[in-house]
Amino acid sequence: MGCIQSFRQCCDQPKNTNVRISLPAVCFVWQLAMIILFGFFIRYNAESDVHWKQENKNISRSDIENDFYFRYPSFQDVHVMIFVGFGFLMTFLKRYSFGAVGFNLLIAAFGLQWALLMQGWFHSLDPMDGKIKIGVESMINADFCVASCLIAYGAVLGKVSPVQLMVMTLFGVTLYAVEEYIILNLIHARDAGGSMVIHTFGAYYGLSISWMLYRPNLDKRLNGSVYHSDVFAMIGTLFLWMFWPSFNSAISYHGDGQHRAAINTYLSLAATVLTTVAISSLSQKAGKLDMVHIQNSTLAGGVAVGTAAEFMLMPYGSLIVGFCCGIISTLGYIYLTPFMEKYLKIQDTCGIHNLHAMPGVIGGIVGAITAAAASEGVYGKEGLKTVFDFTGKWENMLPTQQGGHQAAGLCVALCFGIGGGILVGCVLRLPIWGDAPDDHCFDDELYWEVPEDEESIPPILEYDNHIRNQAGKNSHFSMEQSRN
Amino acid sequence: MGCIQSFRQCCDQPKNTNVRISLPAVCFVWQLAMIILFGFFIRYNAESDVHWKQENKNISRSDIENDFYFRYPSFQDVHVMIFVGFGFLMTFLKRYSFGAVGFNLLIAAFGLQWALLMQGWFHSLDPMDGKIKIGVESMINADFCVASCLIAYGAVLGKVSPVQLMVMTLFGVTLYAVEEYIILNLIHARDAGGSMVIHTFGAYYGLSISWMLYRPNLDKRLNGSVYHSDVFAMIGTLFLWMFWPSFNSAISYHGDGQHRAAINTYLSLAATVLTTVAISSLSQKAGKLDMVHIQNSTLAGGVAVGTAAEFMLMPYGSLIVGFCCGIISTLGYIYLTPFMEKYLKIQDTCGIHNLHAMPGVIGGIVGAITAAAASEGVYGKEGLKTVFDFTGKWENMLPTQQGGHQAAGLCVALCFGIGGGILVGCVLRLPIWGDAPDDHCFDDELYWEVPEDEESIPPILEYDNHIRNQAGKNSHFSMEQSRN
Amino acid sequence: MGCIQSFRQCCDQPKNTNVRISLPAVCFVWQLAMIILFGFFIRYNAESDVHWKQENKNISRSDIENDFYFRYPSFQDVHVMIFVGFGFLMTFLKRYSFGAVGFNLLIAAFGLQWALLMQGWFHSLDPMDGKIKIGVESMINADFCVASCLIAYGAVLGKVSPVQLMVMTLFGVTLYAVEEYIILNLIHARDAGGSMVIHTFGAYYGLSISWMLYRPNLDKRLNGSVYHSDVFAMIGTLFLWMFWPSFNSAISYHGDGQHRAAINTYLSLAATVLTTVAISSLSQKAGKLDMVHIQNSTLAGGVAVGTAAEFMLMPYGSLIVGFCCGIISTLGYIYLTPFMEKYLKIQDTCGIHNLHAMPGVIGGIVGAITAAAASEGVYGKEGLKTVFDFTGKWENMLPTQQGGHQAAGLCVALCFGIGGGILVGCVLRLPIWGDAPDDHCFDDELYWEVPEDEESIPPILEYDNHIRNQAGKNSHFSMEQSRN
Repeated sequence: MGCIQSFRQCCDQPKNTNVRISLPAVCFVWQLAMIILFGFFIRYNAESDVHWKQENKNISRSDIENDFYFRYPSFQDVHVMIFVGFGFLMTFLKRYSFGAVGFNLLIAAFGLQWALLMQGWFHSLDPMDGKIKIGVESMINADFCVASCLIAYGAVLGKVSPVQLMVMTLFGVTLYAVEEYIILNLIHARDAGGSMVIHTFGAYYGLSISWMLYRPNLDKRLNGSVYHSDVFAMIGTLFLWMFWPSFNSAISYHGDGQHRAAINTYLSLAATVLTTVAISSLSQKAGKLDMVHIQNSTLAGGVAVGTAAEFMLMPYGSLIVGFCCGIISTLGYIYLTPFMEKYLKIQDTCGIHNLHAMPGVIGGIVGAITAAAASEGVYGKEGLKTVFDFTGKWENMLPTQQGGHQAAGLCVALCFGIGGGILVGCVLRLPIWGDAPDDHCFDDELYWEVPEDEESIPPILEYDNHIRNQAGKNSHFSMEQSRN
Repeated sequence: MGCIQSFRQCCDQPKNTNVRISLPAVCFVWQLAMIILFGFFIRYNAESDVHWKQENKNISRSDIENDFYFRYPSFQDVHVMIFVGFGFLMTFLKRYSFGAVGFNLLIAAFGLQWALLMQGWFHSLDPMDGKIKIGVESMINADFCVASCLIAYGAVLGKVSPVQLMVMTLFGVTLYAVEEYIILNLIHARDAGGSMVIHTFGAYYGLSISWMLYRPNLDKRLNGSVYHSDVFAMIGTLFLWMFWPSFNSAISYHGDGQHRAAINTYLSLAATVLTTVAISSLSQKAGKLDMVHIQNSTLAGGVAVGTAAEFMLMPYGSLIVGFCCGIISTLGYIYLTPFMEKYLKIQDTCGIHNLHAMPGVIGGIVGAITAAAASEGVYGKEGLKTVFDFTGKWENMLPTQQGGHQAAGLCVALCFGIGGGILVGCVLRLPIWGDAPDDHCFDDELYWEVPEDEESIPPILEYDNHIRNQAGKNSHFSMEQSRN
Repeated sequence: MGCIQSFRQCCDQPKNTNVRISLPAVCFVWQLAMIILFGFFIRYNAESDVHWKQENKNISRSDIENDFYFRYPSFQDVHVMIFVGFGFLMTFLKRYSFGAVGFNLLIAAFGLQWALLMQGWFHSLDPMDGKIKIGVESMINADFCVASCLIAYGAVLGKVSPVQLMVMTLFGVTLYAVEEYIILNLIHARDAGGSMVIHTFGAYYGLSISWMLYRPNLDKRLNGSVYHSDVFAMIGTLFLWMFWPSFNSAISYHGDGQHRAAINTYLSLAATVLTTVAISSLSQKAGKLDMVHIQNSTLAGGVAVGTAAEFMLMPYGSLIVGFCCGIISTLGYIYLTPFMEKYLKIQDTCGIHNLHAMPGVIGGIVGAITAAAASEGVYGKEGLKTVFDFTGKWENMLPTQQGGHQAAGLCVALCFGIGGGILVGCVLRLPIWGDAPDDHCFDDELYWEVPEDEESIPPILEYDNHIRNQAGKNSHFSMEQSRN
């Protein structure tokens, strides 16, 4: 602990935010590395390879039974969540919308390539030829993996440079792939919607990094929203909210598995909205609602129902999960975020602790309980096997055991998140990454060519009159006028 | 009539817009009620239950034949229409964007839960165990039901409190479920895209409520758009416009039914755009277009083709419907909306009479005519049975009779809309709901914590200079400056 | 050349931007013509006709094998690209957002109807009854055809009247249909994602028109963005970026064809983002990113992988294509666009030369090389036939020959684009179309009723004080204040 503190201090040096060498270098070199690695390792899988057509004819399957048609609509919904959902959710800051959508796009585009490789090595390496075989499910999993890094971005939004984000994504994806392999394959926990694997890991990864990068003198003048930026952020909120059923059902098993996961998520999210509104209104003197809560806490139900979405959670079970998460997440924004900043020295720009960390942990617990409570009466003998994948060496596993494995999975996600975040945080404190000084955070000016201010557009027709009218006045004053 | 007027006056008392008790209470209690009712009544249907897998194997159906894969992509499109489409369409007001997207989300999230119950009791109660069995089609129908309440919201936008909206939604969903049962099941009218069931009912429900809540002294300073809010509203317009084919085809029968409904709607909407532009340009002195028309009237063709979308309307038939509706709807905005406000005392914020009421009625009539004109020559003997569902006790029904039933359905929708709206309007006039006083309508300040104005963000780099320059002037003036 | 120049001068007459007669006339008459032509020619195809149900039962196909379920999700994604993607991408100008989304909607709605007819006559005319049979694939193709005209719109954005746009679309769609028929049917080139047919043609069509309409005295005060308009434009960028895999796979053959096209596009786009960021940062003094590059060049990989998307391009091949296009497209914005304006007299508002023209040509070349390099070893004997459609009279074609045909196709697209653009440009120079004078370009005021400025909204609560404070000052000054 002490050593972390001293490391922290030794890294605090004057800032140079020029990334003209480092950013292009990172982008070029890493993209070239991707091309080379893809050349060595990545090929189409059986269902996206041209030979599928022929094999398919031999076994008289219909074209529509290609996995593409089971999963592609969900993939596109997930894709929208990653790029528009996460991207626009972060545009709420008054002067960081370019950074929010732009860097979100950058790190997601890099992360998904690296995720295809990392996840491929762990999950879909073909032992015959040593190649990773990719298809639509790989693309969904890559997007999922990227999601955890974008969640982490939420904690450090406005305080890091794009180069730091790239580094954070490189390590984040790597850690994710290892953690996912341990949780899903070694521990044999189930996590269709990623409450543990994506949200818990991603959130604690980001929070730990934010803790390592603590800025005691952070200037908060730009750490807030304006009217329009809040409306932009609602675009992100709504696309996340609407497509979350696709997120949680995207990689469930075909048929009723995907069907049930979508229903459970749909219901949980609906319940969350009502309790979020209730707590938000209660918390203000005049009962007014706070946009921050509506933008974020309404999504907590989707996070928390992730693990159990494909289980027989029952519609009312989903509502209960959503009900609780709306309350907890909104209370988190009201009480916990200021507390964490003041006493734990964790500056969490987007409040990911309330939206991802707590609901993710709840989701892991709900998953463990639901799994432990599973019975042949509800699932049927076949159903238990399918839902919990009791096959191969896990053939004789019992639901109660599975509940324990789920809980173990949650612990692994927590450890990887916190531990990984602290390590990566150390790396990111090196004074070479071009991050912003404390009094220029949350400002697009640092890394973007920002156009002149909107208020300075005079309608052309009135422009000349305006100039003429102003001409008689003293020059300082007319400049003031035209700037407004 | 006289009694309604006197009731109206007796309710006019000083306003208290604090909803800190009522809003959380309504949200909590109703959500708890939902959980209890879901616990008693709602279960997964055969295709989302874990036993489907097993039964499915027995009868050798492919997983892809789960209803989920027929309808889920359409469901997600409908979902986007409900939350982004309706939500953003209403952001056109200069200071009511939070209320537009926020309350839209709130009432839709509540309404869909209540709709699953109400529609379930009428349509999918399993006689074996007394449970409602839900699947992807139930979710679409719940979204449809909510749409009618969101249409009604358009008429009273900016003039009601969130508590009133919740009450309006509670009754609206209830009335919808009854009306839908009467029209579809008792009268045996067909209405795939809901021209009658959703649009006619929802619009007249909202207009009647708006009539009951008439505000003679309404302050209109904020009842208008600004440049950016009009662009935000176009997000809503476009997502409604693009996904309307999914809306009208979402619950059509599998195969060519869905296919045809999508084509008809696609064409009708295209034709509407051209006539809307034509009338909008004609109506202005210099031929300039009015954003209100483009935002709204371009959608009228989708409404009007709703009932007949799955019939053999023929591509040119769809174009004709769209052609007429673009004209009628735009003329409605130009002439009818001011007339209704002045003479009929109906204040219709979004002009739902032009976008939903008239096109909905036209849609009902088109449906009746198309059904009455159906012949075995066009449909084939089998086709008639499938399209108009001439099975069971309706086996010997003739197309001409069906036309009559369609017309009867339209009347029922009208009656429920107007009658229900007047009744609910009475309830909403009670002075306990926290609605806005006449001079504070269309203002987010009442129910939202609104961030400081955008114009007051000084770019950080110039901030200090700005302060220094202002310091010498008198304090009142400099405050004026910085507020601008 | 000289004759073009003299024609250009003779058309330069004073401008009248009133379109109150011409725009409604064009919309009405052309829409009526569409209805009549649709009445004569357009019918449902086998899969959207009510008889499909019956025929389907006879041959025991499942409903899910209707082409609707193969293509409708992709169609909706393409639809979003056309209306939200292209529409919002063009909202980046500070005062042309209405024109961007509004005219985009208008010309797309007209263009898709005309495209259904034009493409229908060439491709799906039923020889039995002389009717065009449409289904979901026709709708996708119509959207594709419209895309080429929307690309062309990008070059002349802000400089033409809506009537000119309608004329441009009428001719554009006509030329497209002929060119597409020549390239796909006569030359037998493959072009699933339309690198040649859509992007190359559309871009050179627009650039040639822009060259013909060159404005030496163009006022550029409004030819730039503001902060919010750049964020709006990112909505367009992201929806294009995310749904491009659906665009390139929408009309590929069922099964692995669509699957592979989606994967290739997904990867190519990801690589493009990284090199775009790299070049954009390198090109600025302080390494700051330029929003114009992020908004546009990140999409170049999707364009360039269009033709080869369904081929066995291999994942690393897609990355290489994306890598190169990000570099070339961004360099184009930095060096080529100013050069073209200064020396070639081509004013390209959106920089379509960098986003569509160059990547389109690259796409055509990549397609030719990939086709020429195809071998039975990679594709299998069956695979070659399926992917390159070596059937009928093309049965004995070799991959190397196919490569030549692809190159020939690219030339045809170029010729049609440039030649067609010059001809249509001549027509558009006639002084009857109501286009803007040079000093009023890029301004919504000309064709739209623009609401009062945003800055003039005083929060109601402070409004009265504001008025009172201002009352003592001279009237001119207070008007100045309230306008700001």
